[in-house]
Amino acid sequence: MNEFELTILGCGSARPSVRHLPSAQVLSYRGKLFMIDCGEGAQREFFRYGFNLNRVGHIFISHLHGDHCYGLIGFISTLILQGKTGELTIHAHNDLEKLLAPSLEYFCRSEVFKVIFSPLPVKGGIIYEDKSLQVTAFPLKHRVPSYGFRFDEKEKLPHIDKSAAEYYQIPLKELQAIKEGADYITPEGETIPNKKLVLPPSPSQSYAYCSDTIYTPRIVPFVKGVTVLYHESTYTEEYSEQAKDRYHSTAAQAADIARQAEVGTLILGHYSSRYKDEAQFLNEARPIFPNTLLSNEGMKFRF
Amino acid sequence: MNEFELTILGCGSARPSVRHLPSAQVLSYRGKLFMIDCGEGAQREFFRYGFNLNRVGHIFISHLHGDHCYGLIGFISTLILQGKTGELTIHAHNDLEKLLAPSLEYFCRSEVFKVIFSPLPVKGGIIYEDKSLQVTAFPLKHRVPSYGFRFDEKEKLPHIDKSAAEYYQIPLKELQAIKEGADYITPEGETIPNKKLVLPPSPSQSYAYCSDTIYTPRIVPFVKGVTVLYHESTYTEEYSEQAKDRYHSTAAQAADIARQAEVGTLILGHYSSRYKDEAQFLNEARPIFPNTLLSNEGMKFRF
Repeated sequence: MNEFELTILGCGSARPSVRHLPSAQVLSYRGKLFMIDCGEGAQREFFRYGFNLNRVGHIFISHLHGDHCYGLIGFISTLILQGKTGELTIHAHNDLEKLLAPSLEYFCRSEVFKVIFSPLPVKGGIIYEDKSLQVTAFPLKHRVPSYGFRFDEKEKLPHIDKSAAEYYQIPLKELQAIKEGADYITPEGETIPNKKLVLPPSPSQSYAYCSDTIYTPRIVPFVKGVTVLYHESTYTEEYSEQAKDRYHSTAAQAADIARQAEVGTLILGHYSSRYKDEAQFLNEARPIFPNTLLSNEGMKFRF
Repeated sequence: MNEFELTILGCGSARPSVRHLPSAQVLSYRGKLFMIDCGEGAQREFFRYGFNLNRVGHIFISHLHGDHCYGLIGFISTLILQGKTGELTIHAHNDLEKLLAPSLEYFCRSEVFKVIFSPLPVKGGIIYEDKSLQVTAFPLKHRVPSYGFRFDEKEKLPHIDKSAAEYYQIPLKELQAIKEGADYITPEGETIPNKKLVLPPSPSQSYAYCSDTIYTPRIVPFVKGVTVLYHESTYTEEYSEQAKDRYHSTAAQAADIARQAEVGTLILGHYSSRYKDEAQFLNEARPIFPNTLLSNEGMKFRF
């Protein structure tokens, strides 16, 4: 059931802090690893938590501010040093390639490993798809073009109704076809319609990541109903003016997005380095959206 | 007396390790901060130890491998974010400017702060000088052009011989001129020669940093007699073949350089991430050069 595992590598903001690292996350899904943002130091955390470098094929960069992408060059260098082969696709703003390509060419030559840049569509859209997962980018509102990412499990196959399967004595080899929609024909030639043999599939889970953004209800439809929403909350209410000036959100604003979007769980992060602890973020978010959690480096969320 | 203070920000090598950070040091001298190498994460350590960003004016990069320079872009971004004004000179291989300039232009625009690239002279030479300090670059031998740096206090002014000053009743306002070499003329017109009024100056201290290099006695004259030598020791004897193949040194080789150069203290660092602790480095170095210390993140050496 819990096929997503989200690991927080960094949940601080731009100014360095001893308490937090800049933005980076790893989302694991059925053996594949997706990195989301890659702030300075992400490579060290990636290996600290024992992730297998051969399982990471895609990195999603929300926007081109240093605290979200300065870790890329080091991460890629280390992938090569550790012998990774194949491809790594970086989904990011179009400008990233011209910024990173000279350093990749200089520091990261490899005959067996290739970096592919996949520019994010300006208005957002589907940017990744495999047989069980779909990733959509959607626009946020920040000082530079910034994107959120939504990971949706595709609709799953229905479960076999075990009592029906027993009743009709269906051979094992037929079950996959039935899950995929086939009717069952008995040895006597009777057709048992598919709907008599299956039960509804497990619900599909989903995750949305809203990196740097000012509060805007335009985000709501993009994150509607997700199982888990990570939404930046750089400031508490005390600094709401600063949040607006700097195109960031407060904890209460993140909670308001979660409430409107009817998500399952809200995770806060991207804390300003001015805070000595984050208790106040929870105090301000929970009255608006009770199911709110604080992120911290090393935390894992399974859903 | 102890005017140099060396702080180790990172003493690991290229592969990320949870035990160490990549190469970076801060050398403090009379209120000025000199950064030596700037591996990923150096900015966080710089602020962790409370250094004042307005005091750093020069960074010396030994060579263009990522574990010695990937922290530059983040460090500079943060200097700007924190409001640093004036200039920062980066002394490094000529290629660095073309690699870093596009990112500086994109991420680090400032009207009041400027980065200056100062290419290291190919054969080495004096690269920095002020009234009390001189910095010399000298060639090491690695897979890419690599340089060591030597910091020498210039000869200091002599001390006033207090008993002589008292005997001749020299007014306080004359003392600086005497320190600078003047004779003293008494109210009666008698000339007291300078050498009767002064005692030898305190000895000048010095520091040399030998980053990535294969063992080569050609280093010896460049680091001759320094107070403190930091010399890379990526490997222990067990991996001496690998050291040679990768153009690195063992602890014993670093100690041999220190012994030949008759330095005061040897500090080892740039440990391969394969080691779970570094005791064996000391075991192998001290029989050759007893006054050997291990570096570690956060350690400070005063001399």
